[in-house]
Amino acid sequence: MKPNYSKKMNSHYLKNYPRILAFDVFGTVVDWHGSIVKELKVLYPQIDANAFALAWRSGYQPAMRRVMSGELGWTLIDDLHRIILNEILEKFNLNHLNDEQRGKLNLIWHRLQPWSDSVEGLRRLKTKFTICTLSNGNIGLLTNMAKQAGLPWDCILSAEIFRAYKPNPATYLGVGKVFNLEPSQVMLVAAHQDDLLAARQCGLQTAYVERLTEFGEENPKDISRNPDNSVHSRDFIDLAEQLGC
Amino acid sequence: MKPNYSKKMNSHYLKNYPRILAFDVFGTVVDWHGSIVKELKVLYPQIDANAFALAWRSGYQPAMRRVMSGELGWTLIDDLHRIILNEILEKFNLNHLNDEQRGKLNLIWHRLQPWSDSVEGLRRLKTKFTICTLSNGNIGLLTNMAKQAGLPWDCILSAEIFRAYKPNPATYLGVGKVFNLEPSQVMLVAAHQDDLLAARQCGLQTAYVERLTEFGEENPKDISRNPDNSVHSRDFIDLAEQLGC
Repeated sequence: MKPNYSKKMNSHYLKNYPRILAFDVFGTVVDWHGSIVKELKVLYPQIDANAFALAWRSGYQPAMRRVMSGELGWTLIDDLHRIILNEILEKFNLNHLNDEQRGKLNLIWHRLQPWSDSVEGLRRLKTKFTICTLSNGNIGLLTNMAKQAGLPWDCILSAEIFRAYKPNPATYLGVGKVFNLEPSQVMLVAAHQDDLLAARQCGLQTAYVERLTEFGEENPKDISRNPDNSVHSRDFIDLAEQLGC
Repeated sequence: MKPNYSKKMNSHYLKNYPRILAFDVFGTVVDWHGSIVKELKVLYPQIDANAFALAWRSGYQPAMRRVMSGELGWTLIDDLHRIILNEILEKFNLNHLNDEQRGKLNLIWHRLQPWSDSVEGLRRLKTKFTICTLSNGNIGLLTNMAKQAGLPWDCILSAEIFRAYKPNPATYLGVGKVFNLEPSQVMLVAAHQDDLLAARQCGLQTAYVERLTEFGEENPKDISRNPDNSVHSRDFIDLAEQLGC
């Protein structure tokens, strides 16, 4: 059942295993779209849950850019999610929600569900590597999510620690610094080519994970192979097999 | 077998369970003295391992004070341990050790062994609370230690994150901020009354853990009860029972 290694990994990386696997989280480890849609359909059946989830997520990059440009001071993702939420509630005729309801809804990002292979894949990868998050999510969010979803991280690293959001190099380089390792001893695992590209530019190894339905079953992603990645994997089980776990 | 709760906990705390248990690590979770002595006896049987361990540890507080006073810039514990090591090697006639040997010896702090109750106690406490470190040890050290010793932390918090060493209030208050909780919703667990006092002064709940032989069997500690602590416990199993786990 084990895939043929040499075909799947670029050979120059086979000699040079990473020590640390650092995981992007939203979309890579957990299914933000599916989790939000599922909860919204119960809470507010009158709205288009798919459109709401996409709108919330699409406010994320612009909000982080406002932080990184200095327009906003350092702001945690929890607070950015809340700012975006306040903006979109109006568009979806949910402006009547009070503060407490908005607070509870905002914590949906702490309750995101893992993809079906995530927990088993991480458990296997953990036997051979140190596995950590490298997410723009704040530490509290990532810890609550891990506890609820059973994600067995060795360590939670976050933009909050480096006071910079991905794709700022301080985040990718920060992982190696924490563990007193070279950038090439760290592999970023992500479902997003732009994240992986920025990590490679900092000298990290990179593993792409297909998450075809990250934006919903109606909006399948382009999951074509990019040979610049050290590994291209279907899911975390496939990744574990390719990395010899 | 369950102890009588009301006798062991101050009643005003019984109404107000913490959400987060933050653990001091060196001496509280792991047996630094026993671990260092054991390894040194094998590596350098000619020296007094007990005296060496005590000398290394006693350099720790002064070194951190040099950082917090500004005399040294921000310095990780790994590097402080190395500075102290270089000083004491001379006293113990081990000045011939080369750089690589010193580096390996310094990483002894990543390999410290847990007290016999630590892993089981943490597993039980984790079922009811979020359990994290709050240590002056750096993130890499604490992660390597957890992986090796099987410590099931939900999250690793460190002075490295807050850029301040305990007893600086930024560390104790930082835990609540990370989880968006009040200081009183956090309980510091430690085997050191000075650490617990500083935490109480920041509004945290506190649990004392007896570690009679922290400084070796020949140097038993004063483990008398201080009624200012929310809990006084023999070990982590006792703590788990007192906290209803």
